[in-house]
Amino acid sequence: MQDVSTLVAQAREGRPRAVARLISLVEGASPQLREVMAALAPLTGNAYVVGLTGSPGVGKSTSTSALVTAYRKQGKRVGVLAVDPSSPFSGGALLGDRVRMSEHASDPGVYIRSMATRGHLGGLAWAAPQAIRVLDAAGCDVILVETVGVGQSEVEIASQADTSVVLLAPGMGDGIQAAKAGILEIGDVYVVNKADRDGADATARELNHMLGLGEARRPGDWRPPIVKTVAARAEGIDEVLEALEKHRAWMEERGVLAERRLARAAHEVETIAVTALRERIGDLHGDRRLSALAERIVSGDLDPYRASDELVAGLTES
Amino acid sequence: MQDVSTLVAQAREGRPRAVARLISLVEGASPQLREVMAALAPLTGNAYVVGLTGSPGVGKSTSTSALVTAYRKQGKRVGVLAVDPSSPFSGGALLGDRVRMSEHASDPGVYIRSMATRGHLGGLAWAAPQAIRVLDAAGCDVILVETVGVGQSEVEIASQADTSVVLLAPGMGDGIQAAKAGILEIGDVYVVNKADRDGADATARELNHMLGLGEARRPGDWRPPIVKTVAARAEGIDEVLEALEKHRAWMEERGVLAERRLARAAHEVETIAVTALRERIGDLHGDRRLSALAERIVSGDLDPYRASDELVAGLTES
Repeated sequence: MQDVSTLVAQAREGRPRAVARLISLVEGASPQLREVMAALAPLTGNAYVVGLTGSPGVGKSTSTSALVTAYRKQGKRVGVLAVDPSSPFSGGALLGDRVRMSEHASDPGVYIRSMATRGHLGGLAWAAPQAIRVLDAAGCDVILVETVGVGQSEVEIASQADTSVVLLAPGMGDGIQAAKAGILEIGDVYVVNKADRDGADATARELNHMLGLGEARRPGDWRPPIVKTVAARAEGIDEVLEALEKHRAWMEERGVLAERRLARAAHEVETIAVTALRERIGDLHGDRRLSALAERIVSGDLDPYRASDELVAGLTES
Repeated sequence: MQDVSTLVAQAREGRPRAVARLISLVEGASPQLREVMAALAPLTGNAYVVGLTGSPGVGKSTSTSALVTAYRKQGKRVGVLAVDPSSPFSGGALLGDRVRMSEHASDPGVYIRSMATRGHLGGLAWAAPQAIRVLDAAGCDVILVETVGVGQSEVEIASQADTSVVLLAPGMGDGIQAAKAGILEIGDVYVVNKADRDGADATARELNHMLGLGEARRPGDWRPPIVKTVAARAEGIDEVLEALEKHRAWMEERGVLAERRLARAAHEVETIAVTALRERIGDLHGDRRLSALAERIVSGDLDPYRASDELVAGLTES
């Protein structure tokens, strides 16, 4: 087992195996988890985190791949975190997508990681931010977080990005789906992909109308742009990059980027704290303290609220 | 506002309004909640808590009503806690059921309370045990907790009773439903209600077969009996009472009753502690401490795990 500082140094040099090892250490709640997180802390805060979300079939992976290519042309190091079970990175998609993404597989300036949606102690909301920290510390300039836009935790992850991109495609009833999933409230940039298909203009119009209706609920004066793309032919991808840069510049100018990052950090601490406290209480099963409290409740000597106070006090002393 | 000790004294005398007021105080997380719980503690531990669970339509309310009548004949004070949204007590059932239950409405030896399934901080798992404590302290000899046997929290409540009764009815595909809901593992006594209908024997046989298959998973040597009833005509109700008494005697003899009550108390404390800790963390939004920690994370001065440690330590000091 390599020591953590060696792994971190290697990850900084861009060695993919070191990055992979670090992510495994943080997503699996290993004994080294805390040491890794402490080592990464001073190295983070440089990456621009972009969330990409949308229903299966809108072309998220193809769009992600096209964005990676575009960012690589600018000489930027790119991390991709796929927390989408339908993503080719996660193993659930068509061969065509796999082949398409494989062009980045040999590029040392691109790090691609998929994340399983099960088995994490606190779920994705707990594990994804930690993987992002590794990619950030490893020197990625941009981190693309791809999530399927259904399910609370996916929407939550997307909403924790610096900029959230919501993807739609014509003819999928996405307008209604988008409203349902609440993604009309989280998008900073909207992309109508497969814009060469019938109905693309109608989808964009409908979306524009719905965004107009929801405008009052949005903070600040950012009106999310709608960009039409054909990601499979890289059409419109430069416009997406431009929209992202505009949003980033707007956030920096207004102090929104700093606010979002503070909110993200606060959310991260909360999630870790709640998970830790739940675990500690769970660890008390079979422990003498909990059964002693239960005995006093059954005997009528203590009520469950005062017992809870004692339990909580005991948690931080242990 | 009456003081808590007066209310408790009145509840002990069997005054229904005092009981009602106390339950409202504990289920609504009022400022008096802790005072009430402390006052009740020494008065609890006498009631025998029976859970009744089953799918909508099996005749839970009718069975509950028949059991109330039978217990009243024995001179026992009975509390009914209906946490079933389809229960007549909760307002969701047929007029016939309401009329049937109304025979107990004027009986001072019966206290009936429905519990809404929404709006509680920690859900039913948090609120139901506290209402049970009130009924116990108020002098009920038996408390019947009626829950619909679908949904995790209902099953959880039923499994927290001293004795759990699972009700089924012929021709409702209940065998399969029962297996799905996991109620084959929680029943101490099984009742096939509407036993005058076609298929009652088949349902009982199927159930008997499934219980035989699951026997290896059951602790101890209690084989749950299967009782056939026609609750609407009070047929078989004495046999249900007999089965309950046998189970209670078996539990007392083997020390199982004490074990179950300890497990219930431990579970209660845990639920309260987790709810309390979640609230405290929630209260920190807008608080200087959480935002100070977030600032240090964003600046790279602190990692989220050490921040979580500081947050947790701060929770018990405040």
